[in-house]
Amino acid sequence: MVGAHPEVMRRLVETNNLHTVGYGCDEFTAKARELILHACGFEKGAVYLLEGGTQANAVVIDRLLDHNDGVIAADTAHINVHEAGAIESNGHKVLTLPNHDGKLRAEEICGYIKDYRNDDTYIHIVRPAMVYISYPTELGTLYTRDELESIRKVCDEYGIPLYIDGARLAYGLAAECGELQLKDVAELSDVFYIGGTKCGALFGEAVVTRRPELLPRFASLIKLHGATLAKGRLLGVQFCALFTDGLYEKIGKHAIAMAMRLKAGFVEKGYRLYIDSPTNQQFFVLPNEKIDSLKKIASFELWGPRREKETPVRFVTDWATTEEDIDTLISAL
Amino acid sequence: MVGAHPEVMRRLVETNNLHTVGYGCDEFTAKARELILHACGFEKGAVYLLEGGTQANAVVIDRLLDHNDGVIAADTAHINVHEAGAIESNGHKVLTLPNHDGKLRAEEICGYIKDYRNDDTYIHIVRPAMVYISYPTELGTLYTRDELESIRKVCDEYGIPLYIDGARLAYGLAAECGELQLKDVAELSDVFYIGGTKCGALFGEAVVTRRPELLPRFASLIKLHGATLAKGRLLGVQFCALFTDGLYEKIGKHAIAMAMRLKAGFVEKGYRLYIDSPTNQQFFVLPNEKIDSLKKIASFELWGPRREKETPVRFVTDWATTEEDIDTLISAL
Amino acid sequence: MVGAHPEVMRRLVETNNLHTVGYGCDEFTAKARELILHACGFEKGAVYLLEGGTQANAVVIDRLLDHNDGVIAADTAHINVHEAGAIESNGHKVLTLPNHDGKLRAEEICGYIKDYRNDDTYIHIVRPAMVYISYPTELGTLYTRDELESIRKVCDEYGIPLYIDGARLAYGLAAECGELQLKDVAELSDVFYIGGTKCGALFGEAVVTRRPELLPRFASLIKLHGATLAKGRLLGVQFCALFTDGLYEKIGKHAIAMAMRLKAGFVEKGYRLYIDSPTNQQFFVLPNEKIDSLKKIASFELWGPRREKETPVRFVTDWATTEEDIDTLISAL
Amino acid sequence: MVGAHPEVMRRLVETNNLHTVGYGCDEFTAKARELILHACGFEKGAVYLLEGGTQANAVVIDRLLDHNDGVIAADTAHINVHEAGAIESNGHKVLTLPNHDGKLRAEEICGYIKDYRNDDTYIHIVRPAMVYISYPTELGTLYTRDELESIRKVCDEYGIPLYIDGARLAYGLAAECGELQLKDVAELSDVFYIGGTKCGALFGEAVVTRRPELLPRFASLIKLHGATLAKGRLLGVQFCALFTDGLYEKIGKHAIAMAMRLKAGFVEKGYRLYIDSPTNQQFFVLPNEKIDSLKKIASFELWGPRREKETPVRFVTDWATTEEDIDTLISAL
Repeated sequence: MVGAHPEVMRRLVETNNLHTVGYGCDEFTAKARELILHACGFEKGAVYLLEGGTQANAVVIDRLLDHNDGVIAADTAHINVHEAGAIESNGHKVLTLPNHDGKLRAEEICGYIKDYRNDDTYIHIVRPAMVYISYPTELGTLYTRDELESIRKVCDEYGIPLYIDGARLAYGLAAECGELQLKDVAELSDVFYIGGTKCGALFGEAVVTRRPELLPRFASLIKLHGATLAKGRLLGVQFCALFTDGLYEKIGKHAIAMAMRLKAGFVEKGYRLYIDSPTNQQFFVLPNEKIDSLKKIASFELWGPRREKETPVRFVTDWATTEEDIDTLISAL
Repeated sequence: MVGAHPEVMRRLVETNNLHTVGYGCDEFTAKARELILHACGFEKGAVYLLEGGTQANAVVIDRLLDHNDGVIAADTAHINVHEAGAIESNGHKVLTLPNHDGKLRAEEICGYIKDYRNDDTYIHIVRPAMVYISYPTELGTLYTRDELESIRKVCDEYGIPLYIDGARLAYGLAAECGELQLKDVAELSDVFYIGGTKCGALFGEAVVTRRPELLPRFASLIKLHGATLAKGRLLGVQFCALFTDGLYEKIGKHAIAMAMRLKAGFVEKGYRLYIDSPTNQQFFVLPNEKIDSLKKIASFELWGPRREKETPVRFVTDWATTEEDIDTLISAL
Repeated sequence: MVGAHPEVMRRLVETNNLHTVGYGCDEFTAKARELILHACGFEKGAVYLLEGGTQANAVVIDRLLDHNDGVIAADTAHINVHEAGAIESNGHKVLTLPNHDGKLRAEEICGYIKDYRNDDTYIHIVRPAMVYISYPTELGTLYTRDELESIRKVCDEYGIPLYIDGARLAYGLAAECGELQLKDVAELSDVFYIGGTKCGALFGEAVVTRRPELLPRFASLIKLHGATLAKGRLLGVQFCALFTDGLYEKIGKHAIAMAMRLKAGFVEKGYRLYIDSPTNQQFFVLPNEKIDSLKKIASFELWGPRREKETPVRFVTDWATTEEDIDTLISAL
Repeated sequence: MVGAHPEVMRRLVETNNLHTVGYGCDEFTAKARELILHACGFEKGAVYLLEGGTQANAVVIDRLLDHNDGVIAADTAHINVHEAGAIESNGHKVLTLPNHDGKLRAEEICGYIKDYRNDDTYIHIVRPAMVYISYPTELGTLYTRDELESIRKVCDEYGIPLYIDGARLAYGLAAECGELQLKDVAELSDVFYIGGTKCGALFGEAVVTRRPELLPRFASLIKLHGATLAKGRLLGVQFCALFTDGLYEKIGKHAIAMAMRLKAGFVEKGYRLYIDSPTNQQFFVLPNEKIDSLKKIASFELWGPRREKETPVRFVTDWATTEEDIDTLISAL
């Protein structure tokens, strides 16, 4: 991982010596909210800036669910696998459905809810009360517009909110095959977050909703979760930078270009894709010896436990990845 | 459901006017502990009497798990399906593996734990820290001695406790094909509970462990969970009755005999078993019209949501079921 | 402690062999609800039967509070002292005010809420969102009608519910100086519970509200807390007995008579009251040697830790206490 | 609030473009740990870097307490007042004792624990299982060496850990009357944290213990609480800067000098101290009209709700406060 995009960093330095009120009540945070709402095409709506993604997911889900409610998610979902049980630690069950290339299917969500409602013993069963998806998914894949609209329809039918984890949203928006723009994500979700940490900020995620009434007393809940940044303006300054002069889009497009170059290189050299991702995460299945040798020159992760002979791995590109970085890696394959 | 076995009820009435100290510090509770430990073949050990099964599971699991720990269970497990999220409400994730006729398989448990340990990102993953099974299972099936010993071995290998939910234990012990006696269950588990509610008591479950150090300050944790019965001796009196003169065994054997008669009747009439259960729960797949007509004369439940044409149902026998009850039902098929 | 009032026990025995559906969906529970609503003077309203008081408090408070909400209670309140942290274990802070003979004062509640609302940092402070009192209090005392109406007024002013813990309600209603009848308690509270365990039942508390919308999905929350009795009708049968032919009142009056006889005896013998209680709990300050000698012939508890020379103690009367019991004790003073 | 000390900011910028592994496994974090342990005079020990103080308190306390355990704290403690119920949201009760100028007294802690242990009903009572203090306290005051050693002795006697919240530690160490150095705080506590956010960093707190066995699997618990910073090295880089060339001490000394100048100015002008604080927080009681006029030219907070005529206020100095700032303010009094 690298730090923040130079433009973000520049603004943090420029504003460092200013005095502002704390805990997100400053003018930079206010400005960031305004820029984000405008980018989403909202006249009204609410934006909350939090420090990290696990936090954002935990606090939003805790807010949207009542006691004894669960959240429907893919079995591969970040909240189900890589958040150390944060959702459960707040008392909520993650209700998993099988993933299809990292994605949920509308008809399976619908079937699950129907079965709950038709079960005579439903009082003894956790109520499915919201849907969690990520865009892009954990596997780098993207919902088509049709797929997302179908899920939206199921949520509307049953009156439950749809929450989109946008930790890597910049890359979903910039992907060549991506069918959704920021306004679409904003409109099709009830609540979503715009990832900053993985998209050019030092840290920070912007939770956005077109329905502020869904997040009552949210600032206090954020505090309860220990997720209120004392010098809250740091989040405001960064999101101002990201949403000025199209920086967020630029960061997305650059990383996508680098990721496509990387994929092409691996494929050309005969390596197998673990999954065909159109975004900045690229997954390949590599022989274990190859993994060991590449580890010396490049930064990537095993995707799950090491298997006997070959293991899936994940490469991630970002604003700092250069063509040279890619070409050096490819030439070493 | 009926009330308590007449012998249990008789003892409750006989002791009703006595004065004893509250909260389980009375002589009846002490005597029940002694009888149970003796029946388990323990010289030392600990017994705690609780009011119900969901409580027992919640409190035991909460005690055995550390923060950020999860419990491995079959996807069909009671704690995963029918306890309204009680385990998660205490902050713990239920880590599900596919069931095989309601049972976990030792090698799959082993694989799951290995994968966790071999994952570089394990710090971000819920630690599998105990195994939950039930005997009999939710589907009425029984682990063979081999199967249970294999799971025991996996638990020993990884140093995690094995907990057995014995809500219907009397019927597992009494089943014709059952390979395990009470002492085996006691010895092969770290903690288990002897079901009273479903086995002849008004209510009550006896949590038993051969390793009292696994349940430190357990009385206080029971109180925290609102599971301390003020007139605790009611539990003591009932378990004394159940563990005197072999009453618990008698209750088990009678219900099994009735269940086998029931199964034979359905099979003879050409109905399909949903699963072949050797215990007091019997599952059949019935046409929906048949379900509707039988509902008028017998007590049974849909097993899951009603399906389009036919639906699985569950019949349960107990100490009060008579041959006549069964024969009347069968003749109405 | 003794068991249930003989009339309650008789009904449990009479109904023992009946078959009914489980989990409180039976006709006895329905009848108990009807009897209780009628006794409260409600045309509509809701009644839920739970097994014990700590449970009832935990589940009701968990339901009435949102995330980050706290409950205002006296520092002597049962939920603050003797429930092992059950309220906090569900994530809620008990916000204590000083007790005055076990009671809260309306003006202090009002001041606390005002201070919260006027604090610029209120987002970082737990919101006081309900008031908990008990009638009688932990110290056996009773709110006057004026006192209770004043608290009601504060709750109305700030739009927060008033919850009354009636673990020993029968004795509050029967006290000679008691100014409130059941209908008053029902009308002046938003939610309250009618104690069964300490008032003639084997166990059981009836949570009652004139505003059912305050307890949405309550049956499921009860299950989540492990507080759903499988053979739920046991609660129904007992409350039917208590609310038939004025049994609940009779039990209250008898215990009060015995308590007054006890107090008179102690006072006559020159012992100091720890507090002047008009209900079935009587508190005296006794020299430690006297405590030791009385322990051999009577059942009572130290009230708090043993002090150096003399220690407060608590005697409790109930349906089973006889004049002879009292007279024997007094003559031994 | 201002940003980070320029030296801290400089290092963040210098290291911004480096690639390192995430989640605190980088070399800067390792170096920061080494510097901190050295400054504490430890040969072994453990250091964990977290983002904020509410987080640090919540995660440490959650780790140190077992189920049904509470933490003893002053009624004015940050965890009791200004963390929105974060401790309770993790299931733990804050057990308050009256503060004496913001401080706990050893003999009162001792009395509380003794009473718990001597209470026959202790199983129903939350166990006092750790002590929380802050240095400086919420009111800016400091424990003397004697006072802290006495508390240490009580903790040792009862075998419970002492945790020190050092959100403003730099100012406690730099105070003229301060009797404790960093090594003393490190030695007298079991766990403590070195505040970064309020002492020159953008954000960040360093949890330190001389007894690493007290914080098992702590990294995973931090993740569970959503408190793991993805780009963890940001914390490492900042603490490296703070613990190089005595920067942390310099920051403390400067703010103390400014705070003393401020206090002198107010006193000279005849204003009343709310409390006589030797550290960087200064509390005065001001007439409400004065508060309103000063609000236009200076940054400070009401301390609690606005009172009728005059209200306590708090001024805070830091690395960026200048003599001019102070003098301008004083001249406007």
